[in-house]
Amino acid sequence: MSNQEEAIKQWLKDNRARGTRFLQILVQENSIRGNESSAQAVIIEKCRQLGLNLDIWEIDRDEIKNHEAFCCDRDSFEGNPNVVAVLKGAGGGKSIILNGHIDVVPVGDEKNWTHDPFSGQIECGKLYGRGSTDMKGGTAALIMAIESLIATGTKLKGDVIFQSVIEEESGGAGTLAAVLRGYHADGAIIPEPTGMKIFPKQQGSMWFRVRVKGRAAHGGTRYEGVSAIEKAVVVIQKLQQLEKNRNIKITDPLFNNIPIPIPINIGKINGGEWPSSVPDLVVIEGRMGVSPEETITAAQAEMAAVLNELNVQDKWFQANPLEIEWFGGRWLPGNLEVDHPLMKILSNSFEKVKGEAPVIEASPWGTDGGILSNIGNTPVVVFGPGITAAAHDADEHIILEDLFAASKIIALTILKWCEVCD
Amino acid sequence: MSNQEEAIKQWLKDNRARGTRFLQILVQENSIRGNESSAQAVIIEKCRQLGLNLDIWEIDRDEIKNHEAFCCDRDSFEGNPNVVAVLKGAGGGKSIILNGHIDVVPVGDEKNWTHDPFSGQIECGKLYGRGSTDMKGGTAALIMAIESLIATGTKLKGDVIFQSVIEEESGGAGTLAAVLRGYHADGAIIPEPTGMKIFPKQQGSMWFRVRVKGRAAHGGTRYEGVSAIEKAVVVIQKLQQLEKNRNIKITDPLFNNIPIPIPINIGKINGGEWPSSVPDLVVIEGRMGVSPEETITAAQAEMAAVLNELNVQDKWFQANPLEIEWFGGRWLPGNLEVDHPLMKILSNSFEKVKGEAPVIEASPWGTDGGILSNIGNTPVVVFGPGITAAAHDADEHIILEDLFAASKIIALTILKWCEVCD
Repeated sequence: MSNQEEAIKQWLKDNRARGTRFLQILVQENSIRGNESSAQAVIIEKCRQLGLNLDIWEIDRDEIKNHEAFCCDRDSFEGNPNVVAVLKGAGGGKSIILNGHIDVVPVGDEKNWTHDPFSGQIECGKLYGRGSTDMKGGTAALIMAIESLIATGTKLKGDVIFQSVIEEESGGAGTLAAVLRGYHADGAIIPEPTGMKIFPKQQGSMWFRVRVKGRAAHGGTRYEGVSAIEKAVVVIQKLQQLEKNRNIKITDPLFNNIPIPIPINIGKINGGEWPSSVPDLVVIEGRMGVSPEETITAAQAEMAAVLNELNVQDKWFQANPLEIEWFGGRWLPGNLEVDHPLMKILSNSFEKVKGEAPVIEASPWGTDGGILSNIGNTPVVVFGPGITAAAHDADEHIILEDLFAASKIIALTILKWCEVCD
Repeated sequence: MSNQEEAIKQWLKDNRARGTRFLQILVQENSIRGNESSAQAVIIEKCRQLGLNLDIWEIDRDEIKNHEAFCCDRDSFEGNPNVVAVLKGAGGGKSIILNGHIDVVPVGDEKNWTHDPFSGQIECGKLYGRGSTDMKGGTAALIMAIESLIATGTKLKGDVIFQSVIEEESGGAGTLAAVLRGYHADGAIIPEPTGMKIFPKQQGSMWFRVRVKGRAAHGGTRYEGVSAIEKAVVVIQKLQQLEKNRNIKITDPLFNNIPIPIPINIGKINGGEWPSSVPDLVVIEGRMGVSPEETITAAQAEMAAVLNELNVQDKWFQANPLEIEWFGGRWLPGNLEVDHPLMKILSNSFEKVKGEAPVIEASPWGTDGGILSNIGNTPVVVFGPGITAAAHDADEHIILEDLFAASKIIALTILKWCEVCD
């Protein structure tokens, strides 16, 4: 290990309390959608202290709303800025984007929490609170990595572009706005809660809604009607078959340990108005997983084609065709070669810090990495200290040891990727 | 045909306008649940004019709420009385109950009506309005029949007990209250809208609710959860099989023309909260048909046993058993022998008036006849002029010719059943 590396690791070891305190303050600022500004203020102040070049702007909806990857039902971004902070390199090295989202999901039923969701309370080496794992912990790891480079006087050739974006949990308008503002790089790390696994590929996803029609009748003469519930069962079975067919085709070894690489989840069903009437409408809503090897459009077309088979084969659906709607959330898949140089350097850094090889897998969910790679043409790896299962849950928390390890691994990766000036 | 019969038929022929006007006024009084008093006032005034012995009372919920056949979620019956009006016989003849319900179902979406639902408008021999068919038309036929007997000076041996009850559409508390008040007879006619068919047997029914549990998880890792929607499909298929097995056993020729004599209708399904979450609860609601040959309790036990099979066989249901609840409406089945004397006299009267044999079938729905026969020990035939398919529908209407024919058939039946004094 080089002296530079040793110095960085030592600084990070000596400044654990500093990193912990920073995450605590960040968690204490509730940054639910539409309320991101105070947490962003903590980020901005930190970046200012570090001497980074700050770019703070409110997204102009009108400017990006017609982009194909725009997927957002928020009227206004006023008062809640995106933040990009650049550590300018000397030139001649590769640049890197370090992307974290500042928005957190709602607390849910507060009765299920044993810790105050915005306390940042620490217990047995874990820091608790909404966003601690998803993904303010990851953001804190990025900031600590950058600070360690500055504090140890490291001069880099390539640019380090830190991003604290809004809207990840609702479709990625924050990262899209950053891409469209011109931020690209030779590589990117997104420290989403991977539980210290490395995800070069990410499952994309989108929401669908299918309307299944029936014909009403009195329940006592139900044979005079057509039950939308019975017809919905046919649709559900068709979608189950589609899921099966799609997953058989997934042979990428990164999915080896994942029972259903790209699930079709039927999340909601609602139909009928009266126990003794034949229901004339059922609405099904769900989430379709998208393989890293395919496009959103191709996956949508595949589901539409399968439903269209029913519209052709089934006499009832011939006259009352199924209608599919793609609504709400949409997350582009991500797909980086396992032997990409960024993967190699990150894996190498992981081994240096942890003394063992990392687990490399495909992620079961999409991240802003889909936008960064597909729209921004920036190779993306997702790797972070948060706990996958703790995200969005009550008593969300992060293991502080993982946060410290991740900040070291990321700092060493930046060092190799951007290169140190001679 | 006797002179008496001829005189009655003639009076009814001469007083068609009188009968039509009576029905019109009755339809014009909206008697939706909780608002029955003004239509009952029309009935009361008519019965008073006819010189019948009136019994008008408000049901005391506390008095009947513990009866096994009580099925009603209405807090109070205050201000909306039950009405019974008796034409006392001389003695020595058989008595008859003529039962009609005054309550009507809601109008539904008024945009689907081309006639004002409370106009009683007449067009091409049809009288339109909510309740015209179900079953103020039937009640008008009863009143006309009684009036024809009185107007022609007919003296009967047996009592004629006319009843105008509330709550038929909501479980039969009105007829139950009349039974518990002591009204029984040797036979009964209920002129529900049978479309001039004669129904000696009626399908009973009741509502059920099944709660199907799942285990929540993120849609991207749906294999970590258990979909309550997938488990609900298993339940639906089990209920479909139960319906099949139950209907195979129905061999009564009265059901020959009915595709599914005792259907199990699944009317509502609701489950899940979020497209990309695995749903942890689905609630199914429906209506179970009950054969005239079985009891409500036996049918309930059969469904419970089938669901219990799943609770035993299916690993998930072993740990998360299905819960069934019997809620809301419940209608007892009715079952009269086809060769019962009342059936013979009614069929005979039908032939005298219509010149052809009546269609005799089993009804696809329950009526207050279930309570009259099962609780009141009174043999019941359901026969009336209303149109089955028009009941509960927009533009509900009745064919006036059928009303006139029904009043004649019922009058002749009373004459034979109760017998004329020598």
